[in-house]
Amino acid sequence: MLAQFASACGVVTFEFENVPAATFRMIARHSPVRPCARTAEVAQDRIAEKRFLTSLGLPIAPHATLECEEDLVAAAAFLASAGRAILKRARNGYDGKGQSRVASAELEESYKAFGCPCVLEAILPFKTEISVIAVREASGAMQFYDCPENNHAGGILRSSEVPAPISPELQSAAQSITERIAAALGYVGVLGVELFVMPEDDAVPLRVNEIAPRVHNSGHWTLDACIISQFENHIRAVAGWPLGSTNRHSDATMTNLLGDDVRAWRDILQNDPSASLYLYGKSSIRAGRKLGHVTRIQPRKKK
Amino acid sequence: MLAQFASACGVVTFEFENVPAATFRMIARHSPVRPCARTAEVAQDRIAEKRFLTSLGLPIAPHATLECEEDLVAAAAFLASAGRAILKRARNGYDGKGQSRVASAELEESYKAFGCPCVLEAILPFKTEISVIAVREASGAMQFYDCPENNHAGGILRSSEVPAPISPELQSAAQSITERIAAALGYVGVLGVELFVMPEDDAVPLRVNEIAPRVHNSGHWTLDACIISQFENHIRAVAGWPLGSTNRHSDATMTNLLGDDVRAWRDILQNDPSASLYLYGKSSIRAGRKLGHVTRIQPRKKK
Repeated sequence: MLAQFASACGVVTFEFENVPAATFRMIARHSPVRPCARTAEVAQDRIAEKRFLTSLGLPIAPHATLECEEDLVAAAAFLASAGRAILKRARNGYDGKGQSRVASAELEESYKAFGCPCVLEAILPFKTEISVIAVREASGAMQFYDCPENNHAGGILRSSEVPAPISPELQSAAQSITERIAAALGYVGVLGVELFVMPEDDAVPLRVNEIAPRVHNSGHWTLDACIISQFENHIRAVAGWPLGSTNRHSDATMTNLLGDDVRAWRDILQNDPSASLYLYGKSSIRAGRKLGHVTRIQPRKKK
Repeated sequence: MLAQFASACGVVTFEFENVPAATFRMIARHSPVRPCARTAEVAQDRIAEKRFLTSLGLPIAPHATLECEEDLVAAAAFLASAGRAILKRARNGYDGKGQSRVASAELEESYKAFGCPCVLEAILPFKTEISVIAVREASGAMQFYDCPENNHAGGILRSSEVPAPISPELQSAAQSITERIAAALGYVGVLGVELFVMPEDDAVPLRVNEIAPRVHNSGHWTLDACIISQFENHIRAVAGWPLGSTNRHSDATMTNLLGDDVRAWRDILQNDPSASLYLYGKSSIRAGRKLGHVTRIQPRKKK
C-alpha cells in the first residue's frame, strides 16, 4: 500500500527498524531522509524514548532503567514500590516480544536472560489505550485523525475502534501531546503515539506509552473511513505534496488477523459483505503474526 | 488498481478491446475467461450490440446499419426522417473517436471516409445520461451500485455524479435492463450499461446507449464513496470470491482529468484537501486523453 503510493511520488521507502541512526545521518548528507536520524535514535530505544519524553515534561509510566548490573538495586526498590511491572528490552522489541512481567524474585534472572539494557515499567491501572494518528508536513503544519481506542491481547493489537469513548477535550489533549513530540523531533510524515487513558480520579488523565514513527496499525481503518488515508498522507507529507483531509466519514472497527485467524478470510467475506479485507500476502502463518486485517464501517453516530 | 487486486487473487488480466472473439473461444478451452467470447463479440461491434439488445426487446436509439454501399439508400431515408443523426464506426471507436454528426448531403462521403461497417444513430432529445454499474457472480447473483449521472463533452465523459437525479423506480428499471443483458451474456464481473433518460412525456423512459463489459469510468467514484469498489468487486466476481457490499456511504462527484487538465494536479490538492486524486501515470499528455480523475465526496443528502 505504502510502497505503491511512494513509488508513484518518487519516494524510496525502506524498513528502518534496524537501521542505525548513524546511517540515517550519513544518508541525510546526500538526500532528505524522513523520519530523521533523531527520530530513529528515540524510537529504536526505549531508554532514549523515556528520556526524550521526560525532557519534554510529558507524562509517562513510572519506570526504572537497567543499563548495567549496578542498576539492579534501584530497579528492585522501584519494583517493590510499584508492585506490578514489566521488564522490556530497550531495543528490538515489538508486538509483545522482548518483554515479560516480573516478580521481585525474578528480576535479576530476567534481566540477565535478556542480556541487554532494559526498562522496568510499572503496570498502570489505566482505563483504556488510545492512539493519536497525526501527520506533519515539513512546514510544521499538522493534522490529526480521530483517536481510535485500542484493544490488546498478549501485547499485540487485536482491534481498534473509532471514535474512542473519550471526551473531545481529552482527544485535544492527546493531540497536543503528539504535536509537542512531533515538533521536538522535527518530524515529517505520519506519526502514531499510543497513550494510556487513566481513571477519572487520577490527577494525570493521559500517559504516553510509546511513539511509533510511521503509519500505525491502529490507523489502518483510515483507508476505509476517511477521505484520505494515513498511507496516502504519509507519502504526501514525505514527498512535500499538500496534505489531504483527515476527516472521517464513518465510524469504524479494525480487527487484526493474527496467525491462524487469516485462514477464515473466505468465511469473513461470505458472512459479512460489508467487511473490507486486507491480506498482506506474507509467506507463512505463525502464531500472533499480523497477516491481514478487516475493517467494518458504520454511519457516524450522532453526537 | 485492477491489476493489483487481480494479481493478489491469482487472476491474469489483459486488455481485450482488440482480442478477437475466436481467441477468447480458444483460451476458454484451457482456462476460464471472463468476460466470455459472446460478450466480446457483442461489445466490440456496434452492429452486433444493436442486434443483441433488439433481440432482448430492450429500447435503444432508432438507427440504421451500413454494412455495404447498398445500405446507403435505406440509411439516407432513415436520416431524412430522424433529422439529426451520428455516424459511428461499428468497431474500434471509443471516447468520441470514429464517429461524426452527419447531414444528409454528407452521408455517403462520411461512410466512405470511414471505409468500414457503421451504424447511423438518431440523436435523441434525452434529458440526461445515467449508467448502471453492476456486478454479477458466476452463480448469476447480481448487485448494483447506485446510478451516476454522466456529463459528456465531445463524446468524452467529463464527470459523473451520484446520486443521479432520478426516481428510485427509474433506477430499478435501469437495473432490471442491466440484469437482462448480463444474464443473456452469462456475464461474470463488473458490467457498465449507459442509458439515456428520456423526457417525462416520452412513452419510453430509458433507452440503452452502450454496453461496457468492464469496470467503468462512470464508476470510479466507488473507490471513495462505497464500502467495496467496482475494482475489488470485479476481481472478486472473476476469482469466484464472495461479492462485497455495493452500498454507498457518501454522495460523490468524479471529474476526469483530460489532456492538459492533469497539469493542475498540485493546485487541485492545494485548493481542496478533500479531493481524492488518481493519476494514471501515462507517459504523454494528449488533448482529450484520460490521464487521471478526482473524486470529491460529501455526506449523503437526506431523502
